[in-house]
Amino acid sequence: MKTAVSSFTYQTVATDGAARAGVIATAHGEIATPAFMPVGTTGTVKAMTADAVRETGASIVLGNTYHLMLRPGAERIAALGGLHRFMDWPGPILTDSGGFQIMSLAKLRKLDMDGVTFQSHIDGARHRLTPSSAVEIQHLLDATITMVLDECTAFPATPDQAHTSMQLSMRWAAASKQAFVPRPGYGLFGIVQGGVFPDLRRASVEALTGIGFDGYAIGGLAVGEGQAMMLTVLNSTVPLLPRDRPRYLMGVGTPDDLIEAVQRGIDMFDCVIPTRGGRTARAFTTHGILNLRNARFADDAGPLDAACDCPACTHHSCAYLHHLFKSAEMLGPMLLTWHNLAYYQRLMRDMRAAIVAGRLHDFAAATRAAWRPSEDAA
Amino acid sequence: MKTAVSSFTYQTVATDGAARAGVIATAHGEIATPAFMPVGTTGTVKAMTADAVRETGASIVLGNTYHLMLRPGAERIAALGGLHRFMDWPGPILTDSGGFQIMSLAKLRKLDMDGVTFQSHIDGARHRLTPSSAVEIQHLLDATITMVLDECTAFPATPDQAHTSMQLSMRWAAASKQAFVPRPGYGLFGIVQGGVFPDLRRASVEALTGIGFDGYAIGGLAVGEGQAMMLTVLNSTVPLLPRDRPRYLMGVGTPDDLIEAVQRGIDMFDCVIPTRGGRTARAFTTHGILNLRNARFADDAGPLDAACDCPACTHHSCAYLHHLFKSAEMLGPMLLTWHNLAYYQRLMRDMRAAIVAGRLHDFAAATRAAWRPSEDAA
Repeated sequence: MKTAVSSFTYQTVATDGAARAGVIATAHGEIATPAFMPVGTTGTVKAMTADAVRETGASIVLGNTYHLMLRPGAERIAALGGLHRFMDWPGPILTDSGGFQIMSLAKLRKLDMDGVTFQSHIDGARHRLTPSSAVEIQHLLDATITMVLDECTAFPATPDQAHTSMQLSMRWAAASKQAFVPRPGYGLFGIVQGGVFPDLRRASVEALTGIGFDGYAIGGLAVGEGQAMMLTVLNSTVPLLPRDRPRYLMGVGTPDDLIEAVQRGIDMFDCVIPTRGGRTARAFTTHGILNLRNARFADDAGPLDAACDCPACTHHSCAYLHHLFKSAEMLGPMLLTWHNLAYYQRLMRDMRAAIVAGRLHDFAAATRAAWRPSEDAA
Repeated sequence: MKTAVSSFTYQTVATDGAARAGVIATAHGEIATPAFMPVGTTGTVKAMTADAVRETGASIVLGNTYHLMLRPGAERIAALGGLHRFMDWPGPILTDSGGFQIMSLAKLRKLDMDGVTFQSHIDGARHRLTPSSAVEIQHLLDATITMVLDECTAFPATPDQAHTSMQLSMRWAAASKQAFVPRPGYGLFGIVQGGVFPDLRRASVEALTGIGFDGYAIGGLAVGEGQAMMLTVLNSTVPLLPRDRPRYLMGVGTPDDLIEAVQRGIDMFDCVIPTRGGRTARAFTTHGILNLRNARFADDAGPLDAACDCPACTHHSCAYLHHLFKSAEMLGPMLLTWHNLAYYQRLMRDMRAAIVAGRLHDFAAATRAAWRPSEDAA
């Protein structure tokens, strides 16, 4: 997995409509796209060993700068040899900038033109994050892919609010680029903002491409606008992005979201849905979303998903998984997180193969047709 | 691991003083002794996949009849193919009789001459366990080794109390033997009671050997009497046990307890100490017991135990394990349980090798000499 490369590159291997199959080459190995990044918030993909994450087929994981800067601290991780060694993930790691979690988790946060001041949700300690300090922290973490600090525009927002917010993000993007110390095989991604307004999204893309980044993320989606609105934004925004750079849709999503977004040309995703779902008995399967707490599984000797090669599906019955959740046993979240990540990775591999074969449309239709209506109340 | 055998047998391979290295042959595979059985209370060794338990070198696990009869139910497990398939453990499984947990967990328990009536700690439902129903439930679970129903005599107890209690257990042992349906490679173990009184222990051994069992357990120890008293009881009791049957010290113990007991001729152990410790940051290592919450580990780039081949020790630093426990991440208990079980299994393997080499005394001395004073506050 570890190959020395002289630069951070993206190459398209095949296209199918707007969808792309590609390869990102990094200092820590290659990433076949479309790719789903499991979320390793505090330096661990929750309920998974690093070996288990690798076994699902993941080639890149995401780390949360906000969590790691507060505990155990970026300097400490640097002194311990970086996040790769810390969490036993020699492969590529993307870290977010910390901005999103400050807004959702921190106390007494105060935004100004140059950054954000906040109190830790852990101990109330005062911290400040600026575009340059966010980049510096990610450097200390040794992130393969660094994200610029941005403001995730809330939904709903008026055009004026979205405009002001986007402009602040573009100012921060420029400052982030300035602070970024290039290293061979490491990349810096910009983040497109602009809410649900096509003109603002276009202006944001133009600002970012003017600065120049190794990849382009689309932020400010999956924040309550709904899938239809999200896809409308993708329809107008993705075609504006450079073709020779990876495109990353932040914080998305359900299997259906991934299919829709890949069909629109997105290459990278991250989301807590499969891992959080795994801890709450919510299973993503060939036949749709199931809730393993449902009493109908109590005597079900069959596997959760016959098409899946994970330990939950190959070693155990639905009845056993149901029993684990009813008994509040840790192995329930462990096995189901493993399964959900295996499902997500298989979905990405299958989409990639379908793109290469020029049959993504049929694959998407067949995949959706196999889903039964969700029984999930969550 | 799975070998068809026509009978449940024990053979001594080597002795070193009173200590024995042996092999128990069962319907579900062989058990090299001395052996430590990880506790799989509700059909899962907490925080471990079955594959991980196997990787530690365990050849047999323990299941708790009390927990399994209440949830998911013995009939259900039988219908699902037995406990081996249910928990993905084709190897040998020993189940306790349920008596111990009824006394420690159930509500409104009432003991009579023929059994015990109790209310489930889960839903308050009324249940009754008798010697024959306890054996029948273990048959439904498909336990490789079935334990007779007994009353674990409390400590302290007067000689009269211990005598009455022991006599009840012997009455139940006879009834359990009557109820047991022999199958090739399956065994039934009797349980020696009698508190801390040598005469009562002797009478209990005589009663049990008169009935005849496939193995003999020593119960009613590690219940508050302290290690010195426990070893005194072992000194007088173990020599009375048949030499051609395995000897099992129930619910014991610390690494030091295991060394002492093996030196006195015990072959089998079970205990929640390594698994419970793993969930509470308590690590058993070559250098003694450590508490990974201790702040001195925050910057410790070294491994927990350089002599250990588990993922916690080979893939991670003490600093990472400390961080996981500080962050309340599930991976902390997962990795540390794995480590503790790997430590326990290695200790058993090393003791076995030392017995075969005739140097158990030296091994015990060297092992203890490497332990630093415990820093554990638990």
